[in-house]
Amino acid sequence: MYRSHTCGELGITDVNKTVTLAGWVQTVRKFGSITFIDLRDRYGITQLLFGENLNALLNENPIGREFVLQATGKVSERSNKNPNLTTGDIEIKVSSFNILNTSITPPFTIQDDTDGGDDLRMKYRYLDLRRNMVKKNLELRYAVNRAARNYLHSHGFMDIETPFLIKSTPEGARDFVVPSRMNPGQFYALPQSPQTFKQLLMVSGYDRYYQVVKCFRDEDLRADRQPEFTQIDCEMSFVEQDDILNMFEGMIKHIFKEVKGFDYRATIERMTWEDAMWQYGNDKPDTRFGMKITNLKSIFNRESKFVKGELINNAGFGVFDNAETVLAITIPNAAGYTRKQLDELTEWVKRPQIGMQGLVYIRHNPDGTLKSSVDKFYSEERLQTIAQAAGAAKNDLVLILAGKEERTRKATSELRLEMGERLGLRNKDEFKLLWVLDFPLFEYSEEDNRWVARHHPFTAPKPDHIDIMIQNDPAIPDPAAYLSHPYAGIKANAYDMVLNGNEVGGGSIRIFRRDLQEKMFKALGMSTEEAMHKFGFLLGAFEFGAPPHGGIAYGFDRLCAILGGSESIRDFIAFPKNNSGRDVMLDAPSTIDNVQLKELSIRLDVQAPTSNP
Amino acid sequence: MYRSHTCGELGITDVNKTVTLAGWVQTVRKFGSITFIDLRDRYGITQLLFGENLNALLNENPIGREFVLQATGKVSERSNKNPNLTTGDIEIKVSSFNILNTSITPPFTIQDDTDGGDDLRMKYRYLDLRRNMVKKNLELRYAVNRAARNYLHSHGFMDIETPFLIKSTPEGARDFVVPSRMNPGQFYALPQSPQTFKQLLMVSGYDRYYQVVKCFRDEDLRADRQPEFTQIDCEMSFVEQDDILNMFEGMIKHIFKEVKGFDYRATIERMTWEDAMWQYGNDKPDTRFGMKITNLKSIFNRESKFVKGELINNAGFGVFDNAETVLAITIPNAAGYTRKQLDELTEWVKRPQIGMQGLVYIRHNPDGTLKSSVDKFYSEERLQTIAQAAGAAKNDLVLILAGKEERTRKATSELRLEMGERLGLRNKDEFKLLWVLDFPLFEYSEEDNRWVARHHPFTAPKPDHIDIMIQNDPAIPDPAAYLSHPYAGIKANAYDMVLNGNEVGGGSIRIFRRDLQEKMFKALGMSTEEAMHKFGFLLGAFEFGAPPHGGIAYGFDRLCAILGGSESIRDFIAFPKNNSGRDVMLDAPSTIDNVQLKELSIRLDVQAPTSNP
Repeated sequence: MYRSHTCGELGITDVNKTVTLAGWVQTVRKFGSITFIDLRDRYGITQLLFGENLNALLNENPIGREFVLQATGKVSERSNKNPNLTTGDIEIKVSSFNILNTSITPPFTIQDDTDGGDDLRMKYRYLDLRRNMVKKNLELRYAVNRAARNYLHSHGFMDIETPFLIKSTPEGARDFVVPSRMNPGQFYALPQSPQTFKQLLMVSGYDRYYQVVKCFRDEDLRADRQPEFTQIDCEMSFVEQDDILNMFEGMIKHIFKEVKGFDYRATIERMTWEDAMWQYGNDKPDTRFGMKITNLKSIFNRESKFVKGELINNAGFGVFDNAETVLAITIPNAAGYTRKQLDELTEWVKRPQIGMQGLVYIRHNPDGTLKSSVDKFYSEERLQTIAQAAGAAKNDLVLILAGKEERTRKATSELRLEMGERLGLRNKDEFKLLWVLDFPLFEYSEEDNRWVARHHPFTAPKPDHIDIMIQNDPAIPDPAAYLSHPYAGIKANAYDMVLNGNEVGGGSIRIFRRDLQEKMFKALGMSTEEAMHKFGFLLGAFEFGAPPHGGIAYGFDRLCAILGGSESIRDFIAFPKNNSGRDVMLDAPSTIDNVQLKELSIRLDVQAPTSNP
Repeated sequence: MYRSHTCGELGITDVNKTVTLAGWVQTVRKFGSITFIDLRDRYGITQLLFGENLNALLNENPIGREFVLQATGKVSERSNKNPNLTTGDIEIKVSSFNILNTSITPPFTIQDDTDGGDDLRMKYRYLDLRRNMVKKNLELRYAVNRAARNYLHSHGFMDIETPFLIKSTPEGARDFVVPSRMNPGQFYALPQSPQTFKQLLMVSGYDRYYQVVKCFRDEDLRADRQPEFTQIDCEMSFVEQDDILNMFEGMIKHIFKEVKGFDYRATIERMTWEDAMWQYGNDKPDTRFGMKITNLKSIFNRESKFVKGELINNAGFGVFDNAETVLAITIPNAAGYTRKQLDELTEWVKRPQIGMQGLVYIRHNPDGTLKSSVDKFYSEERLQTIAQAAGAAKNDLVLILAGKEERTRKATSELRLEMGERLGLRNKDEFKLLWVLDFPLFEYSEEDNRWVARHHPFTAPKPDHIDIMIQNDPAIPDPAAYLSHPYAGIKANAYDMVLNGNEVGGGSIRIFRRDLQEKMFKALGMSTEEAMHKFGFLLGAFEFGAPPHGGIAYGFDRLCAILGGSESIRDFIAFPKNNSGRDVMLDAPSTIDNVQLKELSIRLDVQAPTSNP
């Protein structure tokens, strides 16, 4: 061993011990004939003191930043203690040292506030990984991994590895494929998730399965998506929805406790998908703050005592009268917003990303009077009623958007989040969990006039809806009336776990009857032959005593990012890819040589040919 | 939850409790109007008793093997206890039941001694996985996984995930490659191991890294090789060879303790590669038994007091006189071997797999006399001396093989293992560990007249040999004299862990200096450009303060198989592939459709075209 101790463990009780440390040179400070070096390793920083006797040697062998140094000496109490360092009470009086490796000057500083841009840091990721905040992120990731494993182990779950070279069954996202040299013209696919394997393990009687596992999706990358990502993947037999929710509330609370030292005691709210959509405008609401949406026009707002439209229609204000939807949020204590601030907000909602025509406001002044941008259409009494419906009290500001239902809902949701942000209500050190339940099982595909699985084709309907699915034909004779098809109302036995407005986990109770699974494939437009070709093994397995089962998968990268208080999953991945799916450090992907192509029985089919050695 | 208890936990103290169980029907036994059903789940088997009152219901709903059943009833003491079952003291008097799913008759019996052949069990792997012995194997695998993780965690190692979509750098084994849709004409490769990434993590200062990780090699499959396999992959900084050996002796002993309940207290022998080759004939000796090889001709046998050749040469026996090598093993207490047994052994060594011309024996009779197949060439005194050199005592049998060095050594090694097997000295419940050290760093490639890395190109030479490597030119001017090139004698700072004659782990201290790494690439015939193209990121990293480091990787599948007392790794993998690299359950690999090919900018180049929908 090149060291007797790490750079993070020596303290006042070690004074007079002779020790050897090894690490990286963080800083070199010369004071006349005395030199101080801060030596860094994974565990901390320790100050080395090189006295006059080593001066000549240091001059012969100049030591720079990021050199790898081994130093032996006696632990001494510092006269000038540094309370910010755990080792700040001591320093090492160096008697001998050894330069284990040199370093050229790094292209950016190895500090939290580095001067390196994104691209440079990605190219030299091995240097970026030295920075303390990146190290903290990977340490947090490991802590989450370990906490999850320990919890699952203590509840009888088994880690069982599923294969990576599987069969391509493209639907939903694209598969990455792998040409098989031994089976010319054939391809493996990399798994988008171990979904069917974990279900087979339940059929095999393994009862409780987990895996922290890489998954692959060949999608057009949006910011903060990676072609390879990690899931905490779990499955249980003989369970109903409640059993899963309880088990995984336990897991996430255990993770909070172990990783953040935070005792999450609050009950985790369970909200239907419909409530989430109408009260927050999206299916993963950030419930760290209120400002729920009030639907001023629709009966969908179940809390309202008003019937549809009565509140705002027929006031001669065309924008509201003719709108499909009118939605309001109430900003507490914001009645003081100036005209300038309101104009700026109006511009904000008119940006193309939001896409609204305008913004209506009602100020509920402290003296009880109201001031609105639509004063001329509504009497003060009517405004009073609207403000009341939106839950506004004195000193609040009501913001109202109107337009097509989907766009308006999305815009109101964005406006709500933006206002939450501006008001400091989205504190990254506060954590609020939520279950969203009762998703629709199907979405309608206009293009193909058929149903599409909202979650995936293995999700079971709610128990009450199984018969609706079995007894009705999924065909949609009248596309215009798809909403009245019995399948449109079927709810999924599915659940998403939402943390601070991000979906961190999702799962479902699975179909475990062959007839229901076949009906599902049929609803998705698959012929019997196609279903057998792609999923024959699963349909076959369901013939041999498949148990009721269900599971969940957590997006591990995202979960870590949120627990670490960050928006970006890349900061929590040791070697991430950029937004074009490239690893700029490795320079991958890259061309391969013709021998490899030949062996794999494939040829390139590139329009503008890439150079190929 | 469909159950209040599992099928493995109820006992005499639970009598009179009302419980609900759920599981699979193992057996149905009818005795008049009473029916016994053994209900099975992952945790055990519990007997259900259906009384006369349920008879009509059972007749209406006949229950067969592998049905999934939920049953509620009272725990009762059995009159006829079964001491072989943990639940054998009780049974459940069923009051109500529910068939959760039916099963058609499985294509083979779900028992340890199943009637299903290999192919059938692979096709219905989800049924094979129900068998108790397969389940025990996967449970053992999980236990090894967990024991390794816990040990490594407690020693400060961090699990850090490395990427799966990396860069193709073919040498040694072939890469599996993945066409990139977003980068037409370019390919990712799947990692053969995370080697360079773990080294970069050391450069980044992570100090101690581990991962239980899938690796991929596109090799022609031999029996018991899988295209995807799992490694326990580890790396440490600031270490020398001894530090690694000690750390991982600790790990393997911890695994033995946790998984087998076995306290491995013996010192783990450390043997040089040369000793292994000469004393056991191979580099992964099974040291559960002795029968070391004696080299009767060469000075390489350091224990012999005879000088080269003197023992057996010039006796007029051409087979020995002219042979490059003459090797002997001594079989204890086997002097009684009959002529017939010796003839059979002679046939055994003449099989093409072994390929020897014949077998010479010397019987050391109990009365002290000697009987040999070469009596007419050697005096009794000379035979006595030979037998003594081979370590034979009264009652032992000496077996001697002669021929070309490499083949004879291999044959003697095989003969030794075969005799160990026949004599019952290779007990699968006995475990013997061994380190093999000091491998040659290079092998010579006749084809290319250059050096090949025996381990991999990142392995450092022994500290004393670094200067030899730096100061000499790797070029081999005279191919005939390659053995006298300074590089031929360079030993690697590498180590293999051998368990019962199998290599279960291997690693090395790594090169961490750019000049040495460049010299290595040069020795392997890589141009500077090629080295930069493939490993520029690593050479670059070595410029910024790379610490001394080293590591090891365990073949997790093989380690589990040996701990489980099996020869076959397939039995320890949930979803293995067959010897053609196919998953016969999924029917993968398979063709993909033309849309996928088009998107990936590739075309098939198959001679006998595969049908492609």
